[in-house]
Amino acid sequence: MTINRLKQLFTSPRSVAFIGVPRKSGPGALNPVDNLNQWGYDGSVHLVHPHVQEIAGLPVVPKVGDIRAHVDLAVISTPRETVPKMVASCGAAGITAVIVTNQGFAEADPRGRELQTAMLDAARQYGIRIMGPNTLGVINGFDRFNTSFMPLRREETPVGVICQSGVFFVGSTQLVGGMGLGVDLGNTSDVDLADTLHWMAADTRLRVVALHAEGISRGRAFIEAARGVSQRIPIVAVKTGRSPAGAKAAATHSGSMAGEDAVVDAAMRAAGMLRVTNTEELRDLVRAFIRLPPMRGTRVAVVTLTGAGGIMLLDALARWDLEPASLTEAALARVQSLSPTWMPLSNPLDIWPALMKNGMKKVYKLSLADVLSDPGVDGVICVALGLPPAEQVTLGAIDVIQEVSAKHDKPVVVWCYGSHAAEAVSLLEHGGRALPVPSLERGAFVLAAMARYERWRSTASRPAA
Amino acid sequence: MTINRLKQLFTSPRSVAFIGVPRKSGPGALNPVDNLNQWGYDGSVHLVHPHVQEIAGLPVVPKVGDIRAHVDLAVISTPRETVPKMVASCGAAGITAVIVTNQGFAEADPRGRELQTAMLDAARQYGIRIMGPNTLGVINGFDRFNTSFMPLRREETPVGVICQSGVFFVGSTQLVGGMGLGVDLGNTSDVDLADTLHWMAADTRLRVVALHAEGISRGRAFIEAARGVSQRIPIVAVKTGRSPAGAKAAATHSGSMAGEDAVVDAAMRAAGMLRVTNTEELRDLVRAFIRLPPMRGTRVAVVTLTGAGGIMLLDALARWDLEPASLTEAALARVQSLSPTWMPLSNPLDIWPALMKNGMKKVYKLSLADVLSDPGVDGVICVALGLPPAEQVTLGAIDVIQEVSAKHDKPVVVWCYGSHAAEAVSLLEHGGRALPVPSLERGAFVLAAMARYERWRSTASRPAA
Repeated sequence: MTINRLKQLFTSPRSVAFIGVPRKSGPGALNPVDNLNQWGYDGSVHLVHPHVQEIAGLPVVPKVGDIRAHVDLAVISTPRETVPKMVASCGAAGITAVIVTNQGFAEADPRGRELQTAMLDAARQYGIRIMGPNTLGVINGFDRFNTSFMPLRREETPVGVICQSGVFFVGSTQLVGGMGLGVDLGNTSDVDLADTLHWMAADTRLRVVALHAEGISRGRAFIEAARGVSQRIPIVAVKTGRSPAGAKAAATHSGSMAGEDAVVDAAMRAAGMLRVTNTEELRDLVRAFIRLPPMRGTRVAVVTLTGAGGIMLLDALARWDLEPASLTEAALARVQSLSPTWMPLSNPLDIWPALMKNGMKKVYKLSLADVLSDPGVDGVICVALGLPPAEQVTLGAIDVIQEVSAKHDKPVVVWCYGSHAAEAVSLLEHGGRALPVPSLERGAFVLAAMARYERWRSTASRPAA
Repeated sequence: MTINRLKQLFTSPRSVAFIGVPRKSGPGALNPVDNLNQWGYDGSVHLVHPHVQEIAGLPVVPKVGDIRAHVDLAVISTPRETVPKMVASCGAAGITAVIVTNQGFAEADPRGRELQTAMLDAARQYGIRIMGPNTLGVINGFDRFNTSFMPLRREETPVGVICQSGVFFVGSTQLVGGMGLGVDLGNTSDVDLADTLHWMAADTRLRVVALHAEGISRGRAFIEAARGVSQRIPIVAVKTGRSPAGAKAAATHSGSMAGEDAVVDAAMRAAGMLRVTNTEELRDLVRAFIRLPPMRGTRVAVVTLTGAGGIMLLDALARWDLEPASLTEAALARVQSLSPTWMPLSNPLDIWPALMKNGMKKVYKLSLADVLSDPGVDGVICVALGLPPAEQVTLGAIDVIQEVSAKHDKPVVVWCYGSHAAEAVSLLEHGGRALPVPSLERGAFVLAAMARYERWRSTASRPAA
């Protein structure tokens, strides 16, 4: 099967059969058919259940063989002992793509490992590809398709997610920050990281890939696929099992080897992947890559309302191998003319004294524009206030930050503080290019990772000597 | 002056004089008198201004010497050239505590350094203690007193804050997570970290101290004061200027030496302080110490709905020198009886298969109770869902987590995920003892720091051999 055909069968099938769907439907029933309907899937849906005639208003047949239509994808959720037989009956019915959702296989006990092997044997006999077991399957907001029994919000965020656990689907807001196309490989018994990276590589609806891996099988294929994706769009990756205890648990959970962490780390880095150490970093970077223009170097300017915040940022820049940009006299001249004569200006650029004299919006607008125009600046970290409405009128700067950022092709991140910071963050979230970050330090982290990716890409795209 | 007298003059004066207060009042005027009124301060307020007779409905006198009453504290906000003279006139009027708010002193230019010296000379002549310059001064939610021109919400959170920048007052929610008593030392020309640590040491309204230091003067006094505080309540500290660039900037900003970072670090640790590397850690720990019972060891149990989350936690526990608790058979027996026979159970304790059979609330309640009762467990990290209302009825566990946590004297932190995680977090915020954490990894960080503090305290309180 070609990559594109495999991708189509699993992520945008024209017809899907659910085998072992719950009888109940409606709120609280955790019935995947409800979720499909809610998303407006327009392919055909077939239901298989031995004991009922109708589920969620759809007709039900007792056996897969009774379906009188071609089926692209079957989703099996029957008790584990029945799964090898169900896979075989799918094969007999001409189905070549199967998702097995249930737990109780290689991640569980010796009998589960036997059953997983038997299932794979049946699949091989019929040329079936299997996703799972132990998975929520696929979600594809672009094409209105999903196989999840947990209700999920449909979105067309340009983010592809490959994971080995459904927690990334249900917790996508907390862990990833958005998801247009998602693949939960579960135990990864057959369809694997390399396969699905190929799916993402050619998908022009995506601008970043988020990857969660517990174990890596077919290491060379994985690394080559990742390199291919990285040349077009970044991959941000959480590879768990860093610690010996975590690695042992990961090997059990996914049934594959977790690998020597340092080796894995080096290989991932060489393939251009951005490996992060926790899920907050994953979310921060995904959000940055879908919003911000590229970070073409490591020189950062800071526009701040607080000297103390500027110092924290100098520490953070050093930690992440960024450097404070040396602002030119041209970039400093206007702010200097607006500041009290005693105010020493450099980078971080503390504009508080200037704005106390001349007003927030005027000073912020001019200084941010001058800093962004400086050819020695690759990206900017802004500090902004979120105050009660009466004060925000005079001390708010979100609108001018958005206005000025839109005119420049450099990344701008913004940290907001104050009693009404949440409102300022919300304004930033819903308009413009500047990205709100949850802390100064994480603003520096984001720009550093973006710079690392651009550096890798510029090297990787050069023809070999 | 005794410590208590100094603290009373600065943080809960019976009478305060504002010298150089703005003429305007009301929303947007940034007038400290408005903020005092809004907080319901019941001491007497005197205003000094050469050109107006009334501000914010209060009478104004042209000179400090014209005030016909005793004044505990003067707040000077006049242009920098006038400050040494103003301090002298405060001295002549019998005032012994002065806050100087304006910028343009040692942090600015050579003239600023001269003026700061002249101001200190005048203060010394009259026995005046000075806080600042370059400060928002003091906020004391307990006694309804503040000197800030930025409007701040009054609260009685049992957190004392000592900082060298007003950003910690205005951004207290983002940076600290709460503040009942706050002292912004600004340039720290006189009243310093050691002084104010002594104020906090004896204040039984406080349960944790958050400290932000750019430079440390009187190092030995600082460390001794910190040790004294730490024996009663923890100090969580951000010491900036870790990097050479940051250290140089910190020395300029506060006018003091930042010190060799490794030396500072070792001294802070020996005094029991919990030094953190960023403000998110500061906020996490402050929130933990005011909410949670002590973490008496390093053995952590995890109750999880996701195997992948459990593995991430094993990595995080290893990173922070915690260990996964070895759960006893007694602690595991009940969950095992509720789980499918194939489910291997250990720590992290994955209860998903059990609850799919027996319901979330029943399984969560029993398993959390059993784990908390295990004598080999010092603290627990819980994973919980926040879903749409229809699903939350069956898959929500916040209520049982709160109920069970309240019965045990061990810290419980909770990471929530799902489309409605914010609602689950809000429930946790507003009731019970279990603390919501923004990620699994930060849950581990919090328990680790709490364990470190308890270990230090048990050693420090032992009599010397």
